[in-house]
Amino acid sequence: MKVTLLSFTPDPERVVAASARQCYSKFSATRALRDLTDADIQRLLKKVIESGHHSVLEHASFTFAIEGISRACSHQLVRHRIASYSQQSQRYVKLDEIDFIIPESINRDDKLRSEFYEALELCKTCYKKLLEEGVPAEDARYVLPQATPTKIVVTMNARSLMNFFELRCCLSAQWEIRRLAEEMLSLVKQVAPHIFENAGPFCVTRKVCPEKKYECPKWIELYKKSTV
Amino acid sequence: MKVTLLSFTPDPERVVAASARQCYSKFSATRALRDLTDADIQRLLKKVIESGHHSVLEHASFTFAIEGISRACSHQLVRHRIASYSQQSQRYVKLDEIDFIIPESINRDDKLRSEFYEALELCKTCYKKLLEEGVPAEDARYVLPQATPTKIVVTMNARSLMNFFELRCCLSAQWEIRRLAEEMLSLVKQVAPHIFENAGPFCVTRKVCPEKKYECPKWIELYKKSTV
Amino acid sequence: MKVTLLSFTPDPERVVAASARQCYSKFSATRALRDLTDADIQRLLKKVIESGHHSVLEHASFTFAIEGISRACSHQLVRHRIASYSQQSQRYVKLDEIDFIIPESINRDDKLRSEFYEALELCKTCYKKLLEEGVPAEDARYVLPQATPTKIVVTMNARSLMNFFELRCCLSAQWEIRRLAEEMLSLVKQVAPHIFENAGPFCVTRKVCPEKKYECPKWIELYKKSTV
Amino acid sequence: MKVTLLSFTPDPERVVAASARQCYSKFSATRALRDLTDADIQRLLKKVIESGHHSVLEHASFTFAIEGISRACSHQLVRHRIASYSQQSQRYVKLDEIDFIIPESINRDDKLRSEFYEALELCKTCYKKLLEEGVPAEDARYVLPQATPTKIVVTMNARSLMNFFELRCCLSAQWEIRRLAEEMLSLVKQVAPHIFENAGPFCVTRKVCPEKKYECPKWIELYKKSTV
Repeated sequence: MKVTLLSFTPDPERVVAASARQCYSKFSATRALRDLTDADIQRLLKKVIESGHHSVLEHASFTFAIEGISRACSHQLVRHRIASYSQQSQRYVKLDEIDFIIPESINRDDKLRSEFYEALELCKTCYKKLLEEGVPAEDARYVLPQATPTKIVVTMNARSLMNFFELRCCLSAQWEIRRLAEEMLSLVKQVAPHIFENAGPFCVTRKVCPEKKYECPKWIELYKKSTV
Repeated sequence: MKVTLLSFTPDPERVVAASARQCYSKFSATRALRDLTDADIQRLLKKVIESGHHSVLEHASFTFAIEGISRACSHQLVRHRIASYSQQSQRYVKLDEIDFIIPESINRDDKLRSEFYEALELCKTCYKKLLEEGVPAEDARYVLPQATPTKIVVTMNARSLMNFFELRCCLSAQWEIRRLAEEMLSLVKQVAPHIFENAGPFCVTRKVCPEKKYECPKWIELYKKSTV
Repeated sequence: MKVTLLSFTPDPERVVAASARQCYSKFSATRALRDLTDADIQRLLKKVIESGHHSVLEHASFTFAIEGISRACSHQLVRHRIASYSQQSQRYVKLDEIDFIIPESINRDDKLRSEFYEALELCKTCYKKLLEEGVPAEDARYVLPQATPTKIVVTMNARSLMNFFELRCCLSAQWEIRRLAEEMLSLVKQVAPHIFENAGPFCVTRKVCPEKKYECPKWIELYKKSTV
Repeated sequence: MKVTLLSFTPDPERVVAASARQCYSKFSATRALRDLTDADIQRLLKKVIESGHHSVLEHASFTFAIEGISRACSHQLVRHRIASYSQQSQRYVKLDEIDFIIPESINRDDKLRSEFYEALELCKTCYKKLLEEGVPAEDARYVLPQATPTKIVVTMNARSLMNFFELRCCLSAQWEIRRLAEEMLSLVKQVAPHIFENAGPFCVTRKVCPEKKYECPKWIELYKKSTV
């Protein structure tokens, strides 16, 4: 998996803070954009995030280039509807080298790993054969397993990202999309540290577990350390 | 593929027409709902649809239960974001019998069909083996091909459906999602015939082909018959 | 203010529960729709709502006809984007009788009330004069105050309604949209009692106050009664 | 009316083109971002826009600071749901100087203008009186006319903007939001000229008039010049 930040709203925290300032004052956003100090920005961001006035976070957008996630993972990803996607088409692009994604639960067992790859290799051979015989790529791909990698460009605004992290940085999420979410969070933290300071799963952002999994290692790490 | 209309807004055309009437008159929607004649409704629907005032169509929703489409097809389907989805989870549900979807371009050739199924059967066997060995279903499914069937409940409003049909009833769409779109269109036409009277691909609704494929059989059928 | 439920997904709780069942079992939604008992439905709804798996709630939609709210209120209302609106047009409809909305904080003081109406009546007179002189209704309305009533049809699905109630049933919301939200909640509770059983402001649904207003009467009513 | 471009995706055309390239080729978006020539970008943009594959346009976002539009105009503006808004609150901000927006159809007639301002001034006086008497700003504003100015920050992606321009640059749109749309279009053309080259009303983008107003000056300008 390779995740890069392709582009994002320049000075995202200043834009968000200027928008927030205008909501609650006589100042225009253009003036706020120019005049806010870094301390003002941090204070405003802290206030809107803590009080749940997250709509201003929508003014900052982030575009990621993602490579080497499985089609199983991309199918989960595109279920997030407040986002924009451009995925490499299996209808128009014929795959040559296919570097399958293998789950650790399979990879760590030699026998299972070997059977897994055996099935996948047969699929790959069949896929190439079908293409050679003139079957359209869009049909040949039916034989490709969900372990097949894909490339996708994703744009989400900061509010939608917060929600994405709440759901997908959670230990209930599958390992692959969780790893993706963690990579994305790490990237946006570098360019908007105050917006994403407390971003993460619900147990971090809201201090509750909607699924009531109090035996979860993350919950224990966060809230039970002191009681030991 | 099995598509059924699970539920929909009762008397959808009356609800849409009453909403349209209220926009442009002193009457309330409740009064319009009661008083509009069938002829009024047809006239109002024709007017809003032809003039492009499609927002009123959003007041009518349709819920479909879809079974036996491939994961390739469901991945395309859920890219439509103004819609609601509930898909059978491959994380929580272990599949027993798997009745793979096979494209006609493969099925019609004995040799290709037999190689296709050979690869798929090996995947299925591997999947079951992985489950037996304690691999979580969410990981075992990585070996399942995109031909694997899925079940999904979809709700779209009439406006979003119109857009879905424009894109997916088109001969440029892949055969499987086109077949799905055609089934859905056929079902909604039975309960909202005037809303969906001219629904279909762009060449039907807008009399243009955005991709300029004038050699397309559908385009020829629609616009070149008379010239023969 | 007059709020009526114009239409809604028939048997909304069964549709939602059937969709939820299909996500986590081998059963199809069509079969679940037929076979679920009322007890099953209540149990499933309780489970998805408590665990935060709210996407299934989107399959149930509710359409309201709203009359006699102010333009100040409708401007707040249409900020909820996961919803559909058809509002009586001030561009095409010329208003005759205008029954202004007056806030209680003004109404209870004879002097303020009388000055308020004096200004409003002058606006109304000017509006009619402008129309008589041939000014288009869309321009004449600039003189109309935000107390001017409007009619609007609104469709929201159950998930979006839950969010609407969280924000607008809160005592921090303005009285007019709060009254509207409470009317809407009362109406949907009659037809989907188990979906909306615990709907309401954040202090009800999440047992937290994002704005930390612990002196709020609602918070005290909910959580401090026992300590008296 | 004052409209400024507060922020936008840097190098928006390169980002969009790189995303488009990845959909239909083996190249990753990161590599395309680096390697595409300006000519490649223009060619790719032309292709996706003409063929209607507009989803890639969503990767470029634009944030505008808007001041001095009426509440009538902002109410229309926020009906566009695929967008983000931060509006100056009339609940929290007490207005001092109020520079009303006056339609030209009223302004050009001395008598009408004078009656219009007379009503508006009485509203303003009443508003200030209400505030002095302790009425909350959120209630006092009910006396403010729709000509009252507001400030609002708006973020839309390029695809949503295209749709906004189609609807609001049309001569059927009201003059105020049309002027706003034209200002916005002029601003984005400076930073993304190839994306917005043919942006504008439907008669420009699709060469059709959905409302069939063939006597419209714009239609005549576009399509009947040559026949004179």
